[in-house]
Amino acid sequence: MIKAGIVGGTGYTGVELLRLLAIHPEVELRVITSRSEAGIPVADMFPNLRNKLDLCFSEPIVENLSQCDVVFYATPHGVAMTGAAELLDKGVRVIDLGADFRIKDISVWEQWYGMQHTTPGLVAEAVYGLPEVNRDEIKSAHLIACPGCYPTAVQLGFMPLLENGLVDINHLIADAKSGVSGAGRKANIGALLCESSESFKAYAVAGHRHLPEISQALTQMAGANVSLTFVPHLTPMIRGIHATLYATLKNNDVDLQPLYEQRYQDETFVDVMPVGSHPETRSVKGANQCRIAIHRPQGGDTVVVLSVIDNLVKGAAGQAVQNMNIMFALDESAGLNGIALLP
Amino acid sequence: MIKAGIVGGTGYTGVELLRLLAIHPEVELRVITSRSEAGIPVADMFPNLRNKLDLCFSEPIVENLSQCDVVFYATPHGVAMTGAAELLDKGVRVIDLGADFRIKDISVWEQWYGMQHTTPGLVAEAVYGLPEVNRDEIKSAHLIACPGCYPTAVQLGFMPLLENGLVDINHLIADAKSGVSGAGRKANIGALLCESSESFKAYAVAGHRHLPEISQALTQMAGANVSLTFVPHLTPMIRGIHATLYATLKNNDVDLQPLYEQRYQDETFVDVMPVGSHPETRSVKGANQCRIAIHRPQGGDTVVVLSVIDNLVKGAAGQAVQNMNIMFALDESAGLNGIALLP
Amino acid sequence: MIKAGIVGGTGYTGVELLRLLAIHPEVELRVITSRSEAGIPVADMFPNLRNKLDLCFSEPIVENLSQCDVVFYATPHGVAMTGAAELLDKGVRVIDLGADFRIKDISVWEQWYGMQHTTPGLVAEAVYGLPEVNRDEIKSAHLIACPGCYPTAVQLGFMPLLENGLVDINHLIADAKSGVSGAGRKANIGALLCESSESFKAYAVAGHRHLPEISQALTQMAGANVSLTFVPHLTPMIRGIHATLYATLKNNDVDLQPLYEQRYQDETFVDVMPVGSHPETRSVKGANQCRIAIHRPQGGDTVVVLSVIDNLVKGAAGQAVQNMNIMFALDESAGLNGIALLP
Amino acid sequence: MIKAGIVGGTGYTGVELLRLLAIHPEVELRVITSRSEAGIPVADMFPNLRNKLDLCFSEPIVENLSQCDVVFYATPHGVAMTGAAELLDKGVRVIDLGADFRIKDISVWEQWYGMQHTTPGLVAEAVYGLPEVNRDEIKSAHLIACPGCYPTAVQLGFMPLLENGLVDINHLIADAKSGVSGAGRKANIGALLCESSESFKAYAVAGHRHLPEISQALTQMAGANVSLTFVPHLTPMIRGIHATLYATLKNNDVDLQPLYEQRYQDETFVDVMPVGSHPETRSVKGANQCRIAIHRPQGGDTVVVLSVIDNLVKGAAGQAVQNMNIMFALDESAGLNGIALLP
Repeated sequence: MIKAGIVGGTGYTGVELLRLLAIHPEVELRVITSRSEAGIPVADMFPNLRNKLDLCFSEPIVENLSQCDVVFYATPHGVAMTGAAELLDKGVRVIDLGADFRIKDISVWEQWYGMQHTTPGLVAEAVYGLPEVNRDEIKSAHLIACPGCYPTAVQLGFMPLLENGLVDINHLIADAKSGVSGAGRKANIGALLCESSESFKAYAVAGHRHLPEISQALTQMAGANVSLTFVPHLTPMIRGIHATLYATLKNNDVDLQPLYEQRYQDETFVDVMPVGSHPETRSVKGANQCRIAIHRPQGGDTVVVLSVIDNLVKGAAGQAVQNMNIMFALDESAGLNGIALLP
Repeated sequence: MIKAGIVGGTGYTGVELLRLLAIHPEVELRVITSRSEAGIPVADMFPNLRNKLDLCFSEPIVENLSQCDVVFYATPHGVAMTGAAELLDKGVRVIDLGADFRIKDISVWEQWYGMQHTTPGLVAEAVYGLPEVNRDEIKSAHLIACPGCYPTAVQLGFMPLLENGLVDINHLIADAKSGVSGAGRKANIGALLCESSESFKAYAVAGHRHLPEISQALTQMAGANVSLTFVPHLTPMIRGIHATLYATLKNNDVDLQPLYEQRYQDETFVDVMPVGSHPETRSVKGANQCRIAIHRPQGGDTVVVLSVIDNLVKGAAGQAVQNMNIMFALDESAGLNGIALLP
Repeated sequence: MIKAGIVGGTGYTGVELLRLLAIHPEVELRVITSRSEAGIPVADMFPNLRNKLDLCFSEPIVENLSQCDVVFYATPHGVAMTGAAELLDKGVRVIDLGADFRIKDISVWEQWYGMQHTTPGLVAEAVYGLPEVNRDEIKSAHLIACPGCYPTAVQLGFMPLLENGLVDINHLIADAKSGVSGAGRKANIGALLCESSESFKAYAVAGHRHLPEISQALTQMAGANVSLTFVPHLTPMIRGIHATLYATLKNNDVDLQPLYEQRYQDETFVDVMPVGSHPETRSVKGANQCRIAIHRPQGGDTVVVLSVIDNLVKGAAGQAVQNMNIMFALDESAGLNGIALLP
Repeated sequence: MIKAGIVGGTGYTGVELLRLLAIHPEVELRVITSRSEAGIPVADMFPNLRNKLDLCFSEPIVENLSQCDVVFYATPHGVAMTGAAELLDKGVRVIDLGADFRIKDISVWEQWYGMQHTTPGLVAEAVYGLPEVNRDEIKSAHLIACPGCYPTAVQLGFMPLLENGLVDINHLIADAKSGVSGAGRKANIGALLCESSESFKAYAVAGHRHLPEISQALTQMAGANVSLTFVPHLTPMIRGIHATLYATLKNNDVDLQPLYEQRYQDETFVDVMPVGSHPETRSVKGANQCRIAIHRPQGGDTVVVLSVIDNLVKGAAGQAVQNMNIMFALDESAGLNGIALLP
């Protein structure tokens, strides 16, 4: 059994990790830290875990965490970059669900996240944990930077187009819609039911922190600098991201469906749906799955890709577990076989 | 007092018309027809109207309707085109909230709506009822084709760009999101709460009936054929449309904010929000209002316009009343001063 | 025109007051105070008011407020009791939407609200603003204690039974369900969309602050001490209260429907629905209305009363305006004719 | 591996059975019937099952079904009573999730369900599948009548009180609230998102089909005829039932908490929460779990029990699987260890 710890288990990615790891066949949860809740049984805060997980939150103490084989950081940015080094030194694998190690250009990271990076060396060492791109590097990685939720949906949707150089990379558009859990389990007025239900809005159109992460990844896929317009929206539901991607084909004579099917044929967690499909976010609710459909409306040169994930699963906790499975040479699907809850 | 009738008062645009007209200071509601509900008090079906409207549904009989000054059709396509002629002959003004008279090219209409048009002559005569474009024609019109909900949001958002020839009209994109009331008050499984809440999806990406209507209107604004990619989505809420519009500027040196403000400075029902705004659909819930914000992310050549309406009000019943007010030389705002319900 | 001020205009009862008063035909809004938002245009916080209300929040300064004919307090408990005296001295009528003057027994108030009452004299003077009970007193009142939301729904539902001594007053049950706006516009985690949507729960079963208020009122109606079990629940929607009331009839041979109809026959804002009805909260969404239905399942001795209101309207801001209309001898319905938004 | 079939797999209890059985470690799904969808892959209708279940709907043919060890009926009432006999004759165990075999008094059943019962003999033979009551009978049963959703929540909540004769059984009250999935996956207007979201209502107060079922069960527990007032409500969410139960204690000196804890100490799927708790329906969303809390507000003689389940799991499909596990001597929790999805 792999001994696992979680730093920062009180947010939505934290409780989702708990839900997945508590019944993971190869994992034993040892430590869950939270400064604010230390001493409190986890199940008191998250009653879905009653009788499923008999652990209390504890102070984040290195000695405890370093007895784990792997430690997940489900913390706001700035936390993992401080704590990871010591754990790595002690041989613990670290999987960061936050943003600290995602962006290779330190100055870009510092600009978007508004703080100095304290461990730029770890950024260089970290593997970007999108298994569909970096599976081999993940196998031997000690430090994983899990992709953000929007970046996961957008990358998986654009990937075959960019890898094959099929579209104008100067005018990529990602119109993305997220459920409210993306805002985290924080007491902010904008995420109140009365403020965010029965309404729809765009936000951060001027610039969202996931923009540089996505741009970096798409640029790598394309082998050249891409120019992306990224517009995130808030949609009145708990879970789910729907990315609607637009690109202009360079050549109209390409058949995209087989291209996508081939690219993802060995990927358990990416489902290329049949021609004409419209994936619903609920079809992945609670599941570590991305579903994709490709359209060319009116047969024109604009390709429209629809890509859906559960932001808390394939967009966060599930992907983290998938990375762990790969790192520890487990079945990549271990603990990730749950079926989406529908309805 | 203007005597008004409604044909087909049992759908969502119908009940919304009732809500607005029942307290309109210059209107007396005389007739509401519904074959299926004839004899039933309107307030039995729509309890919000109890003690507010003392009318029963009645059979659609021309003699009754022709005693009205104006008759609204809140019916599925194909109904108004059959009944309007006789009423128009008797001097009744007709305002169609449906699609029968929106598209000037009869063959295009017949292709998208899957039936033969029985009164093409009326199509030629009908005025497209978007007051912000056609106010003068509306004043003297006898037959109004009210715009669809998506077309209203998209046109008002794109208008200043197209009228001024500022963008590449071959790659316009309208990524639009609608509440579920757009699907109408029909017993279809897809619109059940259990199917459409807690989920988000695109639909009709291959082609939606509002596409030719929007294309016709944008082409007229641009003075040349436009090519539009229109992707509608269903968002889990009752009311509201959010259109996110993308276009590529021909010239980066244009200041769009004053352009929009000037275009709409005399328009009571179009609100150009301050620079950097993100209009929420709830800010227009129940109100005859369109709110617009203009963005240029990262200062690039892609302009992003955010345009929100309540699909049942500015996108249907409210716009119909606005048209009526103009036709009868009333204050254009009469009966339309209600403030959006927030929260 | 009546000059009106609002103290504490940033909560949900505050913005609802603004929505109603901004278009009230006899009212001119002069002052809206908020310490935290002083200087900010009201419409910046509540975009539904853009172009409808051209006021800024201001510091709560007595000189400004005292130029009003009436001042509404839409504040947490403890605020109105401090400020009202000075305004009353200057001849301003005061309508408190909060709890400061609702409970006549000061010690009970202090126990439930956890603070000392600083102006018990005003409590004695205040009129409890439920027009269906106290209309005459309201006419000449200078200080109104508006009922709470739950108390409004429960009182109107039980009233005819208690006034006529028809039920066992030792085992009254009020099983009440509220939308989340009842929790106010405060940044608390429990009211986040992700915590409160797609879930249902009871809360405060051990004792809710509305219990002593309801008990006081029911006791007054019954002319003897009642014993009430009050169980509030949170239901995943924005607006609305549904009270399901249970009582045991002393005598099975009473016909309750005409009793209720008679009791409320002159009450514009209480609608006794036909036998067999199930009022929906949406039928009063945004409207100053209470709808009631009476049932006797299986003809037994248990009477079930269903009573619905919009907690922000008849349960707060609308009722406050109704009180104002009565105090100033206006048409009691002035500004309150809006029809519930359905769907 | 147990070979399982499902008759009527297109409703919400059907797809929930599929979700549970598709990953049940001891079950092989062989047949799923649906007349209307015969030939269609199950995953085309329910995309959450894509790549999880490779079966098509088929015609309900006895030869196919009789090759199963167990057949589940997830059908409207009237179907199982027609088909079960032949399967039972062939040695197949039958678990009916519908109402056909729940009520022992045939005339009562016929009155409430409006049809003649064709196999009253099977009713006598059927075991009522509430494991917490009838575990021993279930072990050897061939035909199981799974309890309804409301009845499950109400019975588990009242059971310790009634078994111990602690309350007045002439005035039991069950105020129950259900998510909309209880209405089934049928195209009816009342269950549209636009009709049922943002609203709350009671329904069927005059009499709901679950009333006789609950009364029968409570009567059996109490050993005497009970009189129950049962008021179901519709709450705007997909899944979940919250039953708020009221009863009058005969004797105030009883400590209910240990009584409940003791009654359910060996029950994996019933969780008696700590004193003062308020179970949320989301704490059981997707899980085969009932959570219960007991209150005595103000220490009076009215006991309030809060009981929550997921209507599709412990109230339907999960309970059916629990019954199957017991019948086939599997671990009672097999395939039922999934943790509730929160948020």
